[in-house]
Amino acid sequence: MSARRPAQRLEPVSKTRLRLWLRLLKATRSVETELRERLRTEYASTLPRFDVMAALERHPDGLKMSELSQVLRVSNGNVTGIVERLVDDGIALREPVPGDRRAVLIRLTAKGSDEFDRLASAHETWIDALLGDLDPGQATALTELLERIPRDSTEEPSS
Amino acid sequence: MSARRPAQRLEPVSKTRLRLWLRLLKATRSVETELRERLRTEYASTLPRFDVMAALERHPDGLKMSELSQVLRVSNGNVTGIVERLVDDGIALREPVPGDRRAVLIRLTAKGSDEFDRLASAHETWIDALLGDLDPGQATALTELLERIPRDSTEEPSS
Repeated sequence: MSARRPAQRLEPVSKTRLRLWLRLLKATRSVETELRERLRTEYASTLPRFDVMAALERHPDGLKMSELSQVLRVSNGNVTGIVERLVDDGIALREPVPGDRRAVLIRLTAKGSDEFDRLASAHETWIDALLGDLDPGQATALTELLERIPRDSTEEPSS
Repeated sequence: MSARRPAQRLEPVSKTRLRLWLRLLKATRSVETELRERLRTEYASTLPRFDVMAALERHPDGLKMSELSQVLRVSNGNVTGIVERLVDDGIALREPVPGDRRAVLIRLTAKGSDEFDRLASAHETWIDALLGDLDPGQATALTELLERIPRDSTEEPSS
């Protein structure tokens, strides 16, 4: 039952690409599940919270809520709740925007920045282990192939 | 600004793997965003709905709600709403389980099965285009490398 099927060169290319897509989804979801679990059990944190902190770390001058949502490509509603928790926990702070009375900037606090460093370091260690079956050459080859996904839809198809 | 950085062999392997992970996430999310958009605009459908239909198509004898959630790895709450819509739309039906008065099986109707075939065919065409920059050899190589993610954590680390 577990025998590997030989490569089937005669199948339509679309099937080969579909199999690749399903494998890509599976790899991504498996790693995300592991990360989610470790953030929860070891740091009482979540992936969305980690993503928000990472975005704020990359923008030390602060981001408006709308900018933060855009960077994260998630709905404002979700981000609002996460930011509220981060502010309550002393990880982020809200700052008025000069010249725009209704806008606020969200920034990491010094404590938040330290906390993010700790999480990011653990995250890198976990990824190193989860992707540890790939040596540097394979990892680089994989990264380069993945740069072709998705095809740039503004270009003409090649066939 | 867009110049490619040469491969940095001297960086720690963990950075190479982290870069791979970020690229993997980006590729997966880009394709998912495209699929989501096309399902919405061309079929007034959604990815979670498509995933539920695909799971039901793979289990023609029907699935209990709990089994369906397990197959999809999502919370029962989300699946319940999707299944209700599918039943309302005549795509799926609820069937009593002989010998278990409280359980129901969810199955695709004939209309649902036809509808899934239509969606699955469109989905395969979209994937074929989105992954179209990879020839069959590259797609197969990528699939095989992805089979190493995540590393089987029951095995001893190799170094």
